[in-house]
Amino acid sequence: EAVENCCDESEDERDWVWLILREEAQQHAYNEPLLASFLFSTILNHKSLEAALSFHLANKLASPTISSTLLMELFRDALEESKDFRLACRRDLIAVKERDPACTFLLEAFLYFKGYHALQAYRVSHWLWSHERKAMAYFLHSQITKELHIDIHPGAKIGHGVFVDHGTGIVIGETAIVEDDVSMLHHVTLGGSGKKYGDRHPIIHNGVLLGAGATILGRIEIGEHSQIGACSLVLNDVPSFATVVGVPARIIGRKPGRNPASEMQQDFRSSET
Amino acid sequence: EAVENCCDESEDERDWVWLILREEAQQHAYNEPLLASFLFSTILNHKSLEAALSFHLANKLASPTISSTLLMELFRDALEESKDFRLACRRDLIAVKERDPACTFLLEAFLYFKGYHALQAYRVSHWLWSHERKAMAYFLHSQITKELHIDIHPGAKIGHGVFVDHGTGIVIGETAIVEDDVSMLHHVTLGGSGKKYGDRHPIIHNGVLLGAGATILGRIEIGEHSQIGACSLVLNDVPSFATVVGVPARIIGRKPGRNPASEMQQDFRSSET
Amino acid sequence: EAVENCCDESEDERDWVWLILREEAQQHAYNEPLLASFLFSTILNHKSLEAALSFHLANKLASPTISSTLLMELFRDALEESKDFRLACRRDLIAVKERDPACTFLLEAFLYFKGYHALQAYRVSHWLWSHERKAMAYFLHSQITKELHIDIHPGAKIGHGVFVDHGTGIVIGETAIVEDDVSMLHHVTLGGSGKKYGDRHPIIHNGVLLGAGATILGRIEIGEHSQIGACSLVLNDVPSFATVVGVPARIIGRKPGRNPASEMQQDFRSSET
Repeated sequence: EAVENCCDESEDERDWVWLILREEAQQHAYNEPLLASFLFSTILNHKSLEAALSFHLANKLASPTISSTLLMELFRDALEESKDFRLACRRDLIAVKERDPACTFLLEAFLYFKGYHALQAYRVSHWLWSHERKAMAYFLHSQITKELHIDIHPGAKIGHGVFVDHGTGIVIGETAIVEDDVSMLHHVTLGGSGKKYGDRHPIIHNGVLLGAGATILGRIEIGEHSQIGACSLVLNDVPSFATVVGVPARIIGRKPGRNPASEMQQDFRSSET
Repeated sequence: EAVENCCDESEDERDWVWLILREEAQQHAYNEPLLASFLFSTILNHKSLEAALSFHLANKLASPTISSTLLMELFRDALEESKDFRLACRRDLIAVKERDPACTFLLEAFLYFKGYHALQAYRVSHWLWSHERKAMAYFLHSQITKELHIDIHPGAKIGHGVFVDHGTGIVIGETAIVEDDVSMLHHVTLGGSGKKYGDRHPIIHNGVLLGAGATILGRIEIGEHSQIGACSLVLNDVPSFATVVGVPARIIGRKPGRNPASEMQQDFRSSET
Repeated sequence: EAVENCCDESEDERDWVWLILREEAQQHAYNEPLLASFLFSTILNHKSLEAALSFHLANKLASPTISSTLLMELFRDALEESKDFRLACRRDLIAVKERDPACTFLLEAFLYFKGYHALQAYRVSHWLWSHERKAMAYFLHSQITKELHIDIHPGAKIGHGVFVDHGTGIVIGETAIVEDDVSMLHHVTLGGSGKKYGDRHPIIHNGVLLGAGATILGRIEIGEHSQIGACSLVLNDVPSFATVVGVPARIIGRKPGRNPASEMQQDFRSSET
């Protein structure tokens, strides 16, 4: 698959995500001259998706106390060293485009979705965290929280193809694990239970959909392809392919074979067996 | 009514909203010298409410990639071309003052209420959207979401006299319709149901009150002058004058004749019949 | 106790909170050179915790319409005039470190916790409010809400040793009272009930824990050392040492002698009697 090859050394492999972004940027710049300079500096002026992403995030997260150039170098270092990150930033982008009916261009996801921005910036903070640069990881975490209103602890582990929609108010704790192809809406909390140390946040398995305001507390497991209804409070394990809802949540249905994170079906009335 | 006449060409008609704002600004500048320069540049230096609003919003939404002067011109264009917008920005202002007991001056609503700012900036993005400038509309939407933490899709339709209190975390989807004289608190979601295209977000009729954290999903209708309790999840139509609460919500009362959006009565215990 | 003495004139008394902050800042600057200049300008360059806090908050809350230097002077004035504030800013800091297992240094709480920043900036706005400088208090409130996404009305009364975790989306109304040693998570609302004037927001007694998304409406009292479950909606008084949960909330347990705000035990399953 083309995404897999983005970082291969083979000259033949094309980075089609980046090629599409460039093409869309050219088209948008032509249609909306007011944005031409923004699109040039953010996309067209760069040689790779990695360079463009570093530039764009650095502009969003700079502050009077840390310059955008310094941040940009940090992001480029993380992207250069981590092939996993290079794959993830493409798969997350595709996930937005595939799952959000309001997103008609890959370019929109890249430029404007703050859930996407916060997730990629978290990936840098997690890279710092894993390399024992916890002070810098905390600094970056603090900037992400302040500028994008999404609070992902640098210690959390998050897979590929994750779609964070809207994103305002999301909180993901230090020992949380989010596997691949998960979708989550705004106000989701993956929180701890009590002032103990060690593993104390949830594990979200592949393909789960977390509805707006879903609050999941403690070291519990949310089984793959399950769906947590909006406004629900979950304090116990949830089996795979289940739909749960309520405060506290109870199971209202189970449909093996479905893929709620991809369907983005938030209205769970249709999920009953 | 004076508001109606704000944009008439008759010289006799006075724009009393603007006159009050100027008078209050003078009084505040006299009482609090630290704010004098801010009040002069934001209010007293301008010839109309339109000019002041454009200046104020542009300062709030500028970024390293788009200058405040460019945004200010854009806002002035939208206000100049749309009489509907000129009426709405006054009626929304009056709605804040009339419905919020913590708001004692029209000036406070104008200068400080981010729900008011996000709503007016959304009106500009909707004007762009309606004129087939979707790229620019998305850009502006992204700035509003980043700077004001309120996520109103440019395609949504919102009436006049709407009061957005506090506002943090509000999400209003692409095909949502909000009629006149609605009040909503923070964390309200008017969300879609699933990855389908076309009409997929709620219709909120006249005079509805949406409590803090109310989450309304799918193409359902919330009848006029009904009240959605705080923290409620609504997945079905709600009749007019009803009060609903819970996750998922159920009807707990009905009182024809009342006007919850104006009363701002969030405690629904008293609304039972 | 050392905290009590921070502002004594006795030369013998050491401000150990400030001494720890300085020591940690030196250590962090040594380990992470990228942060050295930030740590120098924010901590090491200052002669007191008051000076450092004023500088740090001013940088976070400045805007094109108000300079950071003007804000810094305002914060220093408030800290100089109010011994209560000087004690509170230390006790709140210690509360973060003691109650958050993800916080390993006092320095992290001081530099990075936006709940801490919003609470201290609110204390300045409340000082302005109490000195009849309401216009300036509203201005500052507006900046806190915009920059830190936490909306505490300047008129609210908040005690010492209060821990605001994560913080995004919190709303605390004009007549709310929060006593000492309370802990609250993100999305908490202490809201009014209706458009009446006078006392209309809750009273939260000592040592209460307010879970994520807890919404408490009206002039009700939450008894000391009680625990409000995440996502709960509370419309009635809650007795001391009780645990309540649900929409609307009901009492599910009572355990005299416990201290939920200190334990941060959000998972209330274990709290039943």
